[in-house]
Amino acid sequence: MGFVGVAPDEALMGLITGKRKATEVAHSVWKNIVRKGHTVIDATCGNGYDTLALLKMVADDSGRGCVYGMDIQSTALESTSFLLEGSADENERKLVKLSLVCHSKMEDVVPKGTPVRLVAFNLGYLPGGDKSIITRSPTTLMALQAASRLLDSGGLISTVVYVGHPGGRDELETVQSFASSLPMESWASCKFEMINRPTCPVLVFLLKK
Amino acid sequence: MGFVGVAPDEALMGLITGKRKATEVAHSVWKNIVRKGHTVIDATCGNGYDTLALLKMVADDSGRGCVYGMDIQSTALESTSFLLEGSADENERKLVKLSLVCHSKMEDVVPKGTPVRLVAFNLGYLPGGDKSIITRSPTTLMALQAASRLLDSGGLISTVVYVGHPGGRDELETVQSFASSLPMESWASCKFEMINRPTCPVLVFLLKK
Repeated sequence: MGFVGVAPDEALMGLITGKRKATEVAHSVWKNIVRKGHTVIDATCGNGYDTLALLKMVADDSGRGCVYGMDIQSTALESTSFLLEGSADENERKLVKLSLVCHSKMEDVVPKGTPVRLVAFNLGYLPGGDKSIITRSPTTLMALQAASRLLDSGGLISTVVYVGHPGGRDELETVQSFASSLPMESWASCKFEMINRPTCPVLVFLLKK
Repeated sequence: MGFVGVAPDEALMGLITGKRKATEVAHSVWKNIVRKGHTVIDATCGNGYDTLALLKMVADDSGRGCVYGMDIQSTALESTSFLLEGSADENERKLVKLSLVCHSKMEDVVPKGTPVRLVAFNLGYLPGGDKSIITRSPTTLMALQAASRLLDSGGLISTVVYVGHPGGRDELETVQSFASSLPMESWASCKFEMINRPTCPVLVFLLKK
């Protein structure tokens, strides 16, 4: 089989050369994990780009896939809905369930026992929104714990941590501390960061074995 | 064009799942940087596996490629020669120049003005050898500085840092400190590490733009 137009290691080399954005690399990683029909969670809808990308990964004619999207800001959900209106068809949009709720409460939204394949976090603030509203370490930790409970075996918690704003490094510390607490028998957790660009987002991936 | 049998992002996913060894991932990265005819340096020959891998990447019928291999231990160079005897043909072996020298002196071995495409470091001790002989931070720093001077534009310094032995974390600190000192206009430096397996080797890549 051939992978037309996709070079091997493209995402990895994009990271190393610094030519691809952290979010693009995250999307590449998700494509290796998520299949049609999977249930996934966008824990921080923001402007909706991740919700849309995830929807395209899970949606097919069978109508089985599902994207739970959440955000604490109604403007984020409005932006997400607007983006989906323009970029997804009606059948696809039916697979998205948006909730105005803190991601620490994701278990209130996702039915118990649902096998979740991926939980995506963008930690920081809403681009173009109110910069005083940022994700905060205590709720981020609760959200990561909830995500780890919901996640199915083989699934991934993906975090893009924006560290260029006040509180960003604390948030990264929270994610790292949670990641290092996971038993290596059942989890593989890794971190990718640019060393000589300290404000670049840091990627942390937590894979449930 | 198709990449038969090579999945996109295989190396990246190998890192994330923890299923591929750091050295295997490093080799995958090198293959994206090194071409036939390039001049490369194995700064820590060890048992010779990296020297051999690099040789196969640069060698072709033109006889232009070149691998400078060095190690401070004669047993390492003997192991490397032995491996090359068994796994490379005579024409390929002519492209390898082995030197019993500390890698901090690599500029004494590589002719001035040679465009070097890759400098590979395995930092730690020689597997199966005398564990009291380890790479040390002061000479490692001098070696990284020398490598950065020799490297051609578009080239890569690749380091696999073994952190599971005494002094390993100091060595990583040295590499990180050097990497963060590089100006972002002319270098992209990044680090990949497993978070919940603190003794796993850490990968640091320094790409010269």
